[in-house]
Amino acid sequence: MGANELLADLTALGRNPDGGYTRLAWDDATMTLREWFAGAAADLGLEVTEDGNGNQVAWWRAAGQANRALLLGSHLDSVPDGGPLDGPLGVASALAALAGLKASGWAPSRPIAVANFSDEEGGRFGVACLGSRLATGAITRDAALALRDDEGSSLGEVMAARGHDPRAAGVASWLDDIEYYIELHIEQGRWLAPHQAAVGVASAIWPHGRYRFDFCGQGNHAGATAMADRRDPMLAYAATVLAARELAVDRVENRPQFGPPADSRRLDRMGDGSSFGPVGARATFGRVQVSPGSTNSIPSRVTAWLDARADAEPALEALVAGIVARAQWAAAGDGTTVTVRAESTSGAVEFDHQLRHRIAGLLDAPVLPTGAGHDAGILAAKLPTAMLFVRNPTGVSHAPEESAAPEDIEAGVDALTKVVEELG
Amino acid sequence: MGANELLADLTALGRNPDGGYTRLAWDDATMTLREWFAGAAADLGLEVTEDGNGNQVAWWRAAGQANRALLLGSHLDSVPDGGPLDGPLGVASALAALAGLKASGWAPSRPIAVANFSDEEGGRFGVACLGSRLATGAITRDAALALRDDEGSSLGEVMAARGHDPRAAGVASWLDDIEYYIELHIEQGRWLAPHQAAVGVASAIWPHGRYRFDFCGQGNHAGATAMADRRDPMLAYAATVLAARELAVDRVENRPQFGPPADSRRLDRMGDGSSFGPVGARATFGRVQVSPGSTNSIPSRVTAWLDARADAEPALEALVAGIVARAQWAAAGDGTTVTVRAESTSGAVEFDHQLRHRIAGLLDAPVLPTGAGHDAGILAAKLPTAMLFVRNPTGVSHAPEESAAPEDIEAGVDALTKVVEELG
Repeated sequence: MGANELLADLTALGRNPDGGYTRLAWDDATMTLREWFAGAAADLGLEVTEDGNGNQVAWWRAAGQANRALLLGSHLDSVPDGGPLDGPLGVASALAALAGLKASGWAPSRPIAVANFSDEEGGRFGVACLGSRLATGAITRDAALALRDDEGSSLGEVMAARGHDPRAAGVASWLDDIEYYIELHIEQGRWLAPHQAAVGVASAIWPHGRYRFDFCGQGNHAGATAMADRRDPMLAYAATVLAARELAVDRVENRPQFGPPADSRRLDRMGDGSSFGPVGARATFGRVQVSPGSTNSIPSRVTAWLDARADAEPALEALVAGIVARAQWAAAGDGTTVTVRAESTSGAVEFDHQLRHRIAGLLDAPVLPTGAGHDAGILAAKLPTAMLFVRNPTGVSHAPEESAAPEDIEAGVDALTKVVEELG
Repeated sequence: MGANELLADLTALGRNPDGGYTRLAWDDATMTLREWFAGAAADLGLEVTEDGNGNQVAWWRAAGQANRALLLGSHLDSVPDGGPLDGPLGVASALAALAGLKASGWAPSRPIAVANFSDEEGGRFGVACLGSRLATGAITRDAALALRDDEGSSLGEVMAARGHDPRAAGVASWLDDIEYYIELHIEQGRWLAPHQAAVGVASAIWPHGRYRFDFCGQGNHAGATAMADRRDPMLAYAATVLAARELAVDRVENRPQFGPPADSRRLDRMGDGSSFGPVGARATFGRVQVSPGSTNSIPSRVTAWLDARADAEPALEALVAGIVARAQWAAAGDGTTVTVRAESTSGAVEFDHQLRHRIAGLLDAPVLPTGAGHDAGILAAKLPTAMLFVRNPTGVSHAPEESAAPEDIEAGVDALTKVVEELG
C-alpha cells in the first residue's frame, strides 16, 4: 500500500464543507483515525500498542531482536480547518515505507515502530504536542489532565469519556526502548520548491510559545455609553495586534548551514523574492474570545492568544516582552488592564548533528530550520531525532491549501525507506 | 404585588456565575420567563394572548369597552451577560401599576394591556426588536425566519422546536387595536442621577445600525510563515477597531430640549464632568469570530460586528462610511479584503411630541434622548409611543452592574400609574 493510497482513505474524515479538516484530540474524527491506524498497521502485520496518553505505536519486531528500536511516525490530529497532510503524511509515509520494505524481503536488525502521537496540534486543550510531552515527562500528568477545552471539559474528563483511564497518563516506558525517532512532515513554508528539492532535512526548530492575554474593562451598553466614559478592552487588544505585527520582523541574512555544504542550497533570500530566509521572528493572534460577545455590548473582557517564535531564545524573549509592554501601555491609556500568562513555551531544538548529517548525506538533501513545533522537537530532549520535509509548492500549512504532489509524496516514502535501511 | 417583588421572582432565571444574565430569545430561560409572565398576568385577572411572533400580551378589558387600548410593556430577554433590569423592569412595573390600580378600584375607560415583546435585544439572531419588527411589518416574515444563530439554527427552526408555527409569524392584527404604547425602561447612561430625578421621559432614539465586517485573508501556519508572506485579516480588523474609536466622537454642546423648559433640566454637560451630553456618535466592536480560531494558525477570516450610532442620520452615515473606508484601506495594504453589510439599521425616532409633552408635564420629569434602541422605537412608526426612564446610578447597562434603587423602582411604578390614569 502506497502513501498516496493510504492518505486517500482519510479524505472524508473530519472534513469541513470548505475542504479543510478539523480533527481535534479525542473528537469523533480522531477516534475514527485511531481505528484506521490500528487497522492499517494490523494489515501490515504490525503489533499495535497504546500508552496511557493515547499515543498509538505499531511494532515490527522479529523474534530475538535485542537492539533498541527505530521509531517513525507523526500524528493524525489537525488544527481547526487545517490541511490534509500536516500529520497524516508522516504516518502514512512510515506505514508505506514499512510495507515496501516488508514486500522487498528486507530484514531489520532492530525493532521498527510507527507512532501516531496524540494531540500534536494542541487545537483543543491549548498545549501542543501533549501526547509526546506526557510520554517524555515534559508536562506533568496533573498539569495536562487539568487543561480544559473551550467547552470547559478537562483532558482527564474527555479521556475518561472515551474509555481511557486518565490515571494511566504520564511518562511512558516504551520510549526507553527507542534509539532514534524520525518524523517525516509536509513542509511548512516554501523553501524546497525554489531549490528543486522534493525532500529536505530539518536542522532545528525555533523556540516558540503561546501566551494568553486577558484584556479586562467594563462591559456596558454600546449605544448609551459615551466614548469618553468607556473602558473598552477591545481597543488595547487591537493596539496589541498591530504592535505584534510591527515588532515581529523578518530578517534577511545568511547563516551558516549545517548539512551538505553545497552553495546552491544555502537558504538565502529566494531569488524570486517570493520568500524570506528562515531567520527573524513571527507573531500571530489567531484566537480571540470576547465576553459577553454581543454586538450591542461594549466587551468586559477580550482574551487573545499570541503565538510567538524567533530564530533564537533571546530574540523570542525580547519580542514577547515588547508586545507585552505595548499591550500594557495601550491598556493603561484606556483605563483597562491586561494580564499575560505563558501557556506553553518550547526552547530552541537543534536536531542531533550527527544523525542529521548522516541522513542529509544519505539523501543528498538540503537542510533547513523550521518555525513549526513537532513531536520530534519534544523527543529530541530524550533521544536522537531527525525530521524529513516533503516539498509543499503552496508553502501554506494549517489551512486547506496545504498540498504535495503525489510524486513528491512517493519521494518522501523513498527517502524514509532509505533512512530505515540505513538505521534499521 | 409591587415591582420590586415581581423582579425578585426573576433573580435566579438565566443567571450566570458572575451575576450577569443570559436570556436569549427562545432559550430555556426566556421560555420560563414566558410562563412567569403568563402566571403573573393571570394572577391579576388579565387575559393572556400571544401572537405568531412570540409577543405575549396580557389584557385588562372591561365588558363593553369600545375604545382603542393603551399598551404598556417591555421585554424579558437580555443580551449575553446583561443586567437584571433592561427589559424586566418595564414588564414588572406595568404589571405592578395595573395591580395597584385594580386594588384602588380605579376603572379604566379603555382596554389596558401589558406586552412582553419577543427578542428585543437581538442577542441570538443579530437583529434587535425582532418581535416588534415582525408584528409591525418592519421586517418581513421570510427575512426574519431565515436569520440564523451562532449554532446555525434559523429562527424558523428554533420557533418550530419550541412548538410555535413559524408560518404564523408576521404582521400582527392586535396592534391595530392599540392607541398608545408606553415603555418604562432602566436608564442607560447616567444623566438622571446628577439631575436628582428618579424618572425621565424620552425625547428620541438615535439612528443606529449593526454592520457585519468580513475580513478575509489566507489561513496559514503561525510559525512557518514569514511576516512578509502573510495575508493576515486580523491586522485590518485591529486597524478598523482603532479607526472606529478615533472617528466616533463625543460632542459637548447644548441642544434645544423638548418637554418642560426648566433650565435646570437642560441636558448640557454634567457639572461634575462625569458624563457628556447626549450628542455625538458611538462605535463599538463587541462581537468577533475568527476562523479557524487556532492559536497556531494565521486566520483565514475575521468577522466582526460594528454597532454604530449618532445623534443624526447624516452623522451616522458619515461615521460608518469613514470606518468602512479605513477598513478597506487597511485591508488593501495587507493584501486582504473586507466586505461590509448592514444587518439592521434604524432611523432616528422622535417620540410623538404631543404625547411626550403631556407625560413630561404630568410627571414634571426631564426629557432626554437615548442612544439605545427599543421596541417603542419600532412601534413609534405606527402609533404614538412614549418612554419613561428610571434612574440608574451606575449608568451601566448591558452588564451585571446595571441597577436601580428600590425606591426609584417604586417611583417608576408611580409615574407609570399616573400615565395610565391620564391616558386610560
